Amino acid sequence: MAKKTSASFSRPKPWAEVATLLVDVAMGRKPADLVVRNGRWVNVHSGEVIAGTDLAIVAGRFAYCGSDASHAIGQGTKVVDAGGRYLVPGLCDAHMHVESGMVTVTEFCRAVIPHGTTSMFIDPHEIANVLGLGGVRLMHDEAMAMPINVHVQMPSCVPSAPGLENAGAALTVADVVEAMGWENIIGLGEVMNFPGVAANDPVMAGEIAATVRAGKTVGGHYASRDLGLPFHGYVAGGAEDDHEGTRAEDAIARVRQGMKAMLRLGSAWYDVAAQIKAVTEQGVDPRNFILCTDDSHSGTLVDDGHMDRVVRHAIAQGLKPVTAIQMATINTAQHFRLEREIGSIAPGRLADFLIVSDLAALAIDEVYSRGVRLARAGRLEADIRPYDYPATAKKTVKLGKKLAARDFDIVAPAGANEVRARVIGVIENQAPTRALEADLPVEDGLVAMDRRNDICQIALVERHRGTGGVVNGFVSGFGYVEDCALASTVAHDSHHMIVVGTNKEDMALAANRLGQVGGGVVLFSKGREIALVEMPIAGLMSDERAEIVAAKAAKLTEAMRQMGCSLNNAYMQHSLLALVVIPELRISDVGLVDVTTFEKVDLFL
Amino acid sequence: MAKKTSASFSRPKPWAEVATLLVDVAMGRKPADLVVRNGRWVNVHSGEVIAGTDLAIVAGRFAYCGSDASHAIGQGTKVVDAGGRYLVPGLCDAHMHVESGMVTVTEFCRAVIPHGTTSMFIDPHEIANVLGLGGVRLMHDEAMAMPINVHVQMPSCVPSAPGLENAGAALTVADVVEAMGWENIIGLGEVMNFPGVAANDPVMAGEIAATVRAGKTVGGHYASRDLGLPFHGYVAGGAEDDHEGTRAEDAIARVRQGMKAMLRLGSAWYDVAAQIKAVTEQGVDPRNFILCTDDSHSGTLVDDGHMDRVVRHAIAQGLKPVTAIQMATINTAQHFRLEREIGSIAPGRLADFLIVSDLAALAIDEVYSRGVRLARAGRLEADIRPYDYPATAKKTVKLGKKLAARDFDIVAPAGANEVRARVIGVIENQAPTRALEADLPVEDGLVAMDRRNDICQIALVERHRGTGGVVNGFVSGFGYVEDCALASTVAHDSHHMIVVGTNKEDMALAANRLGQVGGGVVLFSKGREIALVEMPIAGLMSDERAEIVAAKAAKLTEAMRQMGCSLNNAYMQHSLLALVVIPELRISDVGLVDVTTFEKVDLFL
Repeated sequence: MAKKTSASFSRPKPWAEVATLLVDVAMGRKPADLVVRNGRWVNVHSGEVIAGTDLAIVAGRFAYCGSDASHAIGQGTKVVDAGGRYLVPGLCDAHMHVESGMVTVTEFCRAVIPHGTTSMFIDPHEIANVLGLGGVRLMHDEAMAMPINVHVQMPSCVPSAPGLENAGAALTVADVVEAMGWENIIGLGEVMNFPGVAANDPVMAGEIAATVRAGKTVGGHYASRDLGLPFHGYVAGGAEDDHEGTRAEDAIARVRQGMKAMLRLGSAWYDVAAQIKAVTEQGVDPRNFILCTDDSHSGTLVDDGHMDRVVRHAIAQGLKPVTAIQMATINTAQHFRLEREIGSIAPGRLADFLIVSDLAALAIDEVYSRGVRLARAGRLEADIRPYDYPATAKKTVKLGKKLAARDFDIVAPAGANEVRARVIGVIENQAPTRALEADLPVEDGLVAMDRRNDICQIALVERHRGTGGVVNGFVSGFGYVEDCALASTVAHDSHHMIVVGTNKEDMALAANRLGQVGGGVVLFSKGREIALVEMPIAGLMSDERAEIVAAKAAKLTEAMRQMGCSLNNAYMQHSLLALVVIPELRISDVGLVDVTTFEKVDLFL
Repeated sequence: MAKKTSASFSRPKPWAEVATLLVDVAMGRKPADLVVRNGRWVNVHSGEVIAGTDLAIVAGRFAYCGSDASHAIGQGTKVVDAGGRYLVPGLCDAHMHVESGMVTVTEFCRAVIPHGTTSMFIDPHEIANVLGLGGVRLMHDEAMAMPINVHVQMPSCVPSAPGLENAGAALTVADVVEAMGWENIIGLGEVMNFPGVAANDPVMAGEIAATVRAGKTVGGHYASRDLGLPFHGYVAGGAEDDHEGTRAEDAIARVRQGMKAMLRLGSAWYDVAAQIKAVTEQGVDPRNFILCTDDSHSGTLVDDGHMDRVVRHAIAQGLKPVTAIQMATINTAQHFRLEREIGSIAPGRLADFLIVSDLAALAIDEVYSRGVRLARAGRLEADIRPYDYPATAKKTVKLGKKLAARDFDIVAPAGANEVRARVIGVIENQAPTRALEADLPVEDGLVAMDRRNDICQIALVERHRGTGGVVNGFVSGFGYVEDCALASTVAHDSHHMIVVGTNKEDMALAANRLGQVGGGVVLFSKGREIALVEMPIAGLMSDERAEIVAAKAAKLTEAMRQMGCSLNNAYMQHSLLALVVIPELRISDVGLVDVTTFEKVDLFL
């Protein structure tokens, strides 16, 4: 098959415009564009696998799915022999942030299409925190130019925690109302301010109401183990799904309340295995379970895969293959009211499907979207051109000054020889942190780190308005044993700059370097730059290929390891330390935040 | 509980208007209107039955569903102790025609609410055939005044078979476009012209496209056992459900294609038992199966029930109770994109639920809709006032002349002593007829009946425009042994008048009597009126109570039996003989119709 140019990625025509053509092809009156013969139809409607199935496709949609499509073959019809292999609906990622891959929507698609992803539901709340509604629009428009279905959820909580942080931008109820009218907005992105919903915060209530009035889906995010009243209050507020559960009881609680339990396997999230026991051990109806990734590193995409990885993992936990596939196809489609468009191989739906040689192993030979083969044998065939981001999207790191080591000084209370300080405790493989405390020595009036006990410094450097503001604190868990500092402008969700270091000189060097390259992540050690991933788009995304970004990120990971850090996904842990919506202790541009009480707290006890 | 007046049946407020109130109640900040304590929650989302469940209800919606709603009880909160009984979502009838009950929407609701029905999806295509779009609007508006959810499907095929019949009115694509904008239109009613869909008939294609563009559901009706190309062509045309299947393979074929298999148990349809084997024996995923009644006699409603009867029957076929209940609740709600509103006991949904003392037997103690108890112990408590139909809706039987016995003469071909004639063959318990043939004697130039072989006369009397037209033919299967004639202005779908008789004098008397009372059904024998059910509204519906209508209908049935007819649902069989969309042979105002070829055929071979 000839390579397709990006010019051929026009939006698929609405069903109603091509319905009579579908009928003509189904009846044999007109030829199909593509006929696939002799496959095993993985039927997510009936739950069956049906051998000897032919598919006829025209105008990017399935016209006929049955035992013999020979009547739909005419001159010009391309015929593909599936040779008894499985025909699987294209996989859907029900909730994810492209920015987590450090790449653009375009490069993300290039990376995941060979893994069988044909629909993504992306919540661009990272770029929204930097560039506001305009940033959402940029990714919305880029998404529409893709050869697969990239639906955009309108970010709901920008900033994530008003009053506890100042992001680069803020979205309002009026913004949500406006965005609900955009062609490619599928719903409201994860409503993270769960205490706000339960408290009837007018912004949360207003955004949710606007979404429901528009007939769209309200994404949830209830990041708490408390299944009592705060949970019930949140549910009553209208969230329709949640991907923050970690235990089987979390999944069951959500499903019972009429929500979809979204089970997440991201680069750093391992929430499927525990929760899927609700189905495999407790017999809960699987129809309300949905798989997603939430956050995937480019390295994960390149090395391990995307939704194919999640489906394989779910099968490995004991789900029937077709049940796991339902959770990444039709269940997702139904949730977003798209069951007429995607999520199954059935007449009228977009012809997004995979040819798979081993179902349990989900060995994907070929990937089709809208009837066009985009990838084969793990290699992208489509030529998807880079998307042109405007210059304003690339000049977002504003430090206001050149930082020096003294900007990271932590002055002790007058006369103190030792202080008891709060310390952010990183937990391996989990998003929540622990609120630790430590007794730290005072030297020359400044509080010192305790490197023997893995307590080093963390700083939140304001980078949206050039205020020169720096908030300093302590963090434990990275295990750095060398003199070093890591700085990142990916700093969920407000995306200032987080700098973690064992010495202040390297902290300053790292911060200044990111100011110079327009953002990204950099590691300095003893005055030398050890690793750098440039992310000039909003300080969040590279404009390079995922493989290149993955290689740079791998180099960064290796460098962090050489500094003594043995965490899985150490960089992601770094970038989450300002996420003031997930317990227990975080840092923001306004100070340290207790995310159990949602209050600013002092560094010293 | 005090009886409610009809004035209290205001439309429920949209979710978005009461969301913050729901949150306040869930959180215990405001009192609920109603709290139900200690029930067994039949959870159609998870498939579980959860003991020890409390429900808190406000503004007609569930605010809290969980283990303890004591925090929602305040002054003025009514508290009901479920005493460990089951809490079941209110039942939904996914496809039905109110007119089949011979009563108004109001009286239908009065009859079925004690049986646990809280949502109905009605297709008023009978009244549409008589009164056109105005008739649809009448029932649409009546439906909105009900204390339960009565959603209206816009009739798609009026007349059912253009060219093969002339109804009292015709609906156009423009009518469908208009109706899709009405508040209470949920989708397009069964698209019965299945050959038209497969042939890309522009009216069918236009109506379906208008429905899809409006985001509403396209109802199907594929009344054929042919699962080959005509079926595939029909599916490609956009129908989303079908209730015409009769075999397990029919149900499986529909589900595989992404349609919902609607399994029907009407007064005369017994299509659940065979098709449900797809689930109970072949393991097909039950999520795409939906239960409905399609057509229920008032007698069935009064004596046997409505959707409770169907659910009980499904359980008796071997479905788990919760699976059968899913097929009459959440599956239906999802199909019509109403899962946020109805179909489950979960926060935000309308508080439509049943208190049930035995789940497998579905013994319904109490029925609540929108948080108000409407029935208890099988007795309606709500005071639902009659709906006022305008005079024009009650003057629809226009015969144009007084009929005489000679109007039913069937003149033989010149010189014939015997003729070979087509005979409509009634099949017990099935809607299709057989195209029979019989050799009939000629007496005085007129073809005679063959009463020994159960061949009597049938006449289709034009009654919409007063043309005086009468089409005569033969029918077999009723078993009449006495001198008698039965006339009915319920004559699907064009609703002229069907007269079946063993002598022409009684045929004329019966026809004229219906002209006098404005329609209905009447049995004459030897010049005497034996039974009459008046149906002055469009000649289709009584304005009396269902019990009264049922009693009159029972008297009619008994009278038919005395005449020698031993068919189950004999009257329904009578009323379907002009239904020129279901094979094999029918009668219409234009003549005899072969419904395998959709062509008019001669009476004589």
